[in-house]
Amino acid sequence: MKALVYVGTSKKSLEERPKPAITAPTDAIVRITKTTICGTDLHILKGDLPSCRPGRILGHEGVGIVDSVGPAVTVFKPGDHVLISCVSACGTCVYCRKQMYSHCTTGGWILGNTIDGTQAEFVRIPHADLSLYAIPEGADEEALVMLSDILPTSFECGVLNGKVQPGNTVAIVGSGPIGLAALLTAQFYSPAEIIVIDLDDNRLDVAKRFGATATVNSTDGRAAEAVLKMTGGRGVDTAIEAVGIPATFELCEKIVTAGGNIANIGVHGKKVDLHLESLWDRNISITTRLVDTATIPMLFKTVASHKIDPKKLITHRFKLDQIMDAYETFGNAANTKALKVIIEA
Amino acid sequence: MKALVYVGTSKKSLEERPKPAITAPTDAIVRITKTTICGTDLHILKGDLPSCRPGRILGHEGVGIVDSVGPAVTVFKPGDHVLISCVSACGTCVYCRKQMYSHCTTGGWILGNTIDGTQAEFVRIPHADLSLYAIPEGADEEALVMLSDILPTSFECGVLNGKVQPGNTVAIVGSGPIGLAALLTAQFYSPAEIIVIDLDDNRLDVAKRFGATATVNSTDGRAAEAVLKMTGGRGVDTAIEAVGIPATFELCEKIVTAGGNIANIGVHGKKVDLHLESLWDRNISITTRLVDTATIPMLFKTVASHKIDPKKLITHRFKLDQIMDAYETFGNAANTKALKVIIEA
Amino acid sequence: MKALVYVGTSKKSLEERPKPAITAPTDAIVRITKTTICGTDLHILKGDLPSCRPGRILGHEGVGIVDSVGPAVTVFKPGDHVLISCVSACGTCVYCRKQMYSHCTTGGWILGNTIDGTQAEFVRIPHADLSLYAIPEGADEEALVMLSDILPTSFECGVLNGKVQPGNTVAIVGSGPIGLAALLTAQFYSPAEIIVIDLDDNRLDVAKRFGATATVNSTDGRAAEAVLKMTGGRGVDTAIEAVGIPATFELCEKIVTAGGNIANIGVHGKKVDLHLESLWDRNISITTRLVDTATIPMLFKTVASHKIDPKKLITHRFKLDQIMDAYETFGNAANTKALKVIIEA
Amino acid sequence: MKALVYVGTSKKSLEERPKPAITAPTDAIVRITKTTICGTDLHILKGDLPSCRPGRILGHEGVGIVDSVGPAVTVFKPGDHVLISCVSACGTCVYCRKQMYSHCTTGGWILGNTIDGTQAEFVRIPHADLSLYAIPEGADEEALVMLSDILPTSFECGVLNGKVQPGNTVAIVGSGPIGLAALLTAQFYSPAEIIVIDLDDNRLDVAKRFGATATVNSTDGRAAEAVLKMTGGRGVDTAIEAVGIPATFELCEKIVTAGGNIANIGVHGKKVDLHLESLWDRNISITTRLVDTATIPMLFKTVASHKIDPKKLITHRFKLDQIMDAYETFGNAANTKALKVIIEA
Repeated sequence: MKALVYVGTSKKSLEERPKPAITAPTDAIVRITKTTICGTDLHILKGDLPSCRPGRILGHEGVGIVDSVGPAVTVFKPGDHVLISCVSACGTCVYCRKQMYSHCTTGGWILGNTIDGTQAEFVRIPHADLSLYAIPEGADEEALVMLSDILPTSFECGVLNGKVQPGNTVAIVGSGPIGLAALLTAQFYSPAEIIVIDLDDNRLDVAKRFGATATVNSTDGRAAEAVLKMTGGRGVDTAIEAVGIPATFELCEKIVTAGGNIANIGVHGKKVDLHLESLWDRNISITTRLVDTATIPMLFKTVASHKIDPKKLITHRFKLDQIMDAYETFGNAANTKALKVIIEA
Repeated sequence: MKALVYVGTSKKSLEERPKPAITAPTDAIVRITKTTICGTDLHILKGDLPSCRPGRILGHEGVGIVDSVGPAVTVFKPGDHVLISCVSACGTCVYCRKQMYSHCTTGGWILGNTIDGTQAEFVRIPHADLSLYAIPEGADEEALVMLSDILPTSFECGVLNGKVQPGNTVAIVGSGPIGLAALLTAQFYSPAEIIVIDLDDNRLDVAKRFGATATVNSTDGRAAEAVLKMTGGRGVDTAIEAVGIPATFELCEKIVTAGGNIANIGVHGKKVDLHLESLWDRNISITTRLVDTATIPMLFKTVASHKIDPKKLITHRFKLDQIMDAYETFGNAANTKALKVIIEA
Repeated sequence: MKALVYVGTSKKSLEERPKPAITAPTDAIVRITKTTICGTDLHILKGDLPSCRPGRILGHEGVGIVDSVGPAVTVFKPGDHVLISCVSACGTCVYCRKQMYSHCTTGGWILGNTIDGTQAEFVRIPHADLSLYAIPEGADEEALVMLSDILPTSFECGVLNGKVQPGNTVAIVGSGPIGLAALLTAQFYSPAEIIVIDLDDNRLDVAKRFGATATVNSTDGRAAEAVLKMTGGRGVDTAIEAVGIPATFELCEKIVTAGGNIANIGVHGKKVDLHLESLWDRNISITTRLVDTATIPMLFKTVASHKIDPKKLITHRFKLDQIMDAYETFGNAANTKALKVIIEA
Repeated sequence: MKALVYVGTSKKSLEERPKPAITAPTDAIVRITKTTICGTDLHILKGDLPSCRPGRILGHEGVGIVDSVGPAVTVFKPGDHVLISCVSACGTCVYCRKQMYSHCTTGGWILGNTIDGTQAEFVRIPHADLSLYAIPEGADEEALVMLSDILPTSFECGVLNGKVQPGNTVAIVGSGPIGLAALLTAQFYSPAEIIVIDLDDNRLDVAKRFGATATVNSTDGRAAEAVLKMTGGRGVDTAIEAVGIPATFELCEKIVTAGGNIANIGVHGKKVDLHLESLWDRNISITTRLVDTATIPMLFKTVASHKIDPKKLITHRFKLDQIMDAYETFGNAANTKALKVIIEA
């Protein structure tokens, strides 16, 4: 089968690989119909994630059709249309019992990381019963690709952890795909104001179209002042960090109101300064989270009932044969204005 | 009247001052019967809190008897025995409405800070209806002095924010009065393990007597290893920071388990390193809080029903005339083994 | 001044009454600009509420302009435009401290019940600081009349207590003004389905226009079957009772799913059958609540940010001189299709 | 093997039965070492539970040693000492995903009900990975028998649902084994007062020894008055119903305070009167629940750390050969003063 393989730092290739086989009774083999590329895949290619070794098939998102299942899989059978969670979950360990699937002792985020992933014609899914989700007939499968990772990530790490509430004021720092997904899912809770902050005017325009009530271009280094001015000096109830660098996290520290929440989504490569000298008495909470995808069933229902349209995030479409182009497009988002790209296998 | 006055950095004196008068219709004048000294008073004397200007009468804790009330005070009358909250609350501002009294727009922690405090024969209490608490007849008033600040602080900022639960594992970093108060109030929730960490073996011995299931002397700089070993490598569900320096906060970062909570109580004078490069995917929460004293009514009931004995924290007793000695004793806790000192006015 | 007075069972009159005067230092006198009629006023007229004695001026909703304030009122001054909460709150009693204003020991729902109300040119508001809300300049004051009672009632007792969540299925039993207000405020949380049940096709049509995803006319006594069919036999996550009779409460018992919530809003005059023989093992919760109006500030923000349009509920407008007609229109809603009527004073 | 079989209404016998065999890959066969009898077993014998057919081996509690496992069991192996949950859980259905194991679509309470149970030498446990719990070496296995059902039932349905909090006042209606277990587990949260109500003075004496702060013998039909008097007319924050008849549930309605919780544990055979005419405006919650046993891991830790001593509940011990005597003793608790009996297999 064809597969996109991480060859080494800055190197990838579309290769021929053997079709995966069931290795545990709880495995399923899924024929991929649609997959996508995540910012994390770019991180791997830069060499930022040592857990992912050269030779690995990338990708942790997608929808497909069950090809075969191990004898202990009870929920799925060949032919079923399924959504693949980016997180694999055994369902029995101490973490899975509290729906903290991200820390499953034999799962978590392993797809396209420590085991072969979804940017291929077929993928082996461990712990299939809890790591796949049935797609009802007639659903828009392209839209559902956004439920593998980006929507639950923005919703769980940003919106739920950030305790977004009706009437509240929210700032989202970072208007890339994940920040925009937070913008979409934050609207489930009818906040009064959603301020989106980014360096890129194009992405801020997209944010406006997606429901931002205000935007701030932070190029001048004065975003904090701008947000405080917009909020009468009070700051925001929820600050969602959707970039992953010290400057953006510290911006959140400056704009969160007393009693507010900083919800980190960003993948950080280095420490940040936490200004406890000004925050110790501010009654704030700061949260971190690796997505658990525990809200996929809830998100399914919001998509089915048109409370959210995940297709807004899809800007480009490719065939699996063109996946090198897809990476090119996705990796040059500043020029291509790409958000999420769909790859059809 | 006699009053302990902050004269300037490292200087205080017991002076004669005029008895305070009612200045707003919601004020009460309280004759102090017992007060105490807080670590924060020592900070003021070091010059760490610029909000507190020379000439200020110190003290924000105590019990007493209402001497007079303004015309808008409805809950109290002269002769009532009352507990004084360290936090004054108007009850009507946006923060008071959500019981975040610490941020009351015309109150908060002002006693012995921006207005004269309780280390005197009389004190003026603004917003008396919400800043005083009736003491039922027959209650042990000395014990109740611990409810002005130290018990609600440790309970709200440490135990409640840290989400201590039955069966959980808790670490308390710092075994001074506030850490020990956290140790006492954490036991309301029956955690399985409470590990207390400090540099001082005497205070660790006290911690053992107060219910710590294990103690760690961190002098060797290897406290994190010790705690991880004690918890099978897993770390603690709740890490309570009760010191207020970077090293102790970073220790909390190292010992908190995935899905756990860091609850900061310490007053920090400088920024700390937040190691998001290792915490971004650990599903943790970090909280800060200035005490709201919203739990004083709850704490009253736990004292009355003997679920907690706050007198354990009291090691020394003085008369107001001896308050300079009381400061000496409290300030040299390493030698005197002082925890909280009672000053009778 | 002119005032609508409850004379005795089934009798009311528009009378001349003396303008109210300040009787406590925390009182304010408000000149009413707009008020409305509540279903509860009709109950009083039927003689259902013995707490309301003949001679009482009715009404507990409205907006107006502060005419005068007592010496202890700190938040408001003459000339301020204010929204009147149907619930008066002292802010200091044990209930007010936890925002359970409905049970304020010297307040609660007293307006137009045990003290004179708002269907008059002027009204005395006790505990003014916590019982009035400042109206920002430029706000649509007519819309805000809906925030005195109907919106917080439906939101607090129905939507919040019912734990409405994104993607969930909600049933609202009763499509009168309060059920329709629940329908509007439930949408803050983006439920997937909202099924509205009533006997009146006109009101069900209104429900459709207001966002119901399905409606059920329960005239045939088979509403439970219909709802179960619509939900694949599963029932609803939240059942909101917005009528107040045994049949509608028992309908909620039949349609709530395992793990779901029944949120009662209705004012009940008699006991209901609770079928614990079928519900004891269903992991449900049932809640009751008298509105606390603690969410008025939140609702203000949702109105200002156009997340909700309360004017949808207003069908008719009258002058205070015509209030007898207004009652006639409101009391014959089946024919007049009245929801809420505005009375301009 | 020997097994206690439900023969028909009021009839049981100790019979020879074939040892159970694995029928699904997720099954385990457990050799029972200790089991017990539950009040529910007596209900079955009275013919109250039609789901349990004659010929069924009774029992849904116990500890034992794994004898064999199906090929899909990953957590346990032969020789492991295990605690058996009374509830079987697949871990993958919509209910299991939210830890509502009681409603597992292929599990729930089936042991000794719709499949053969634990009052035998061996038992087949479906969904073994989530329905068994590893017993650490050196644990007191007899004590752990109380974790199969009675402790999680009282804790989840009574204490957690009843939101018991430090300083609060709790009433437990019914002082049988389940009420007493609620009494023990309520103390995890340090309530100020726990009032236990029963008809049997012996059981009330036990309640006193187990930590009740007050007891009420309700024989005179005046328990509500007594409780209201004890609470200054206010009522209790949490009322736990641990009997299962209309009179005891209605007693809870009378004694719950405004803003309080009624937590039902009792198994009800008929409807009760819910007095909404007096409760509609009292801001209460009423909960029902079939135990999920989701708290077994938490309870394990509280037992290991001596926060609770479940052996207090054990009054008698028998061999499996004597199980008919054990039933006699347990069924005549008024005379034998039996709480829980241990049966060694």
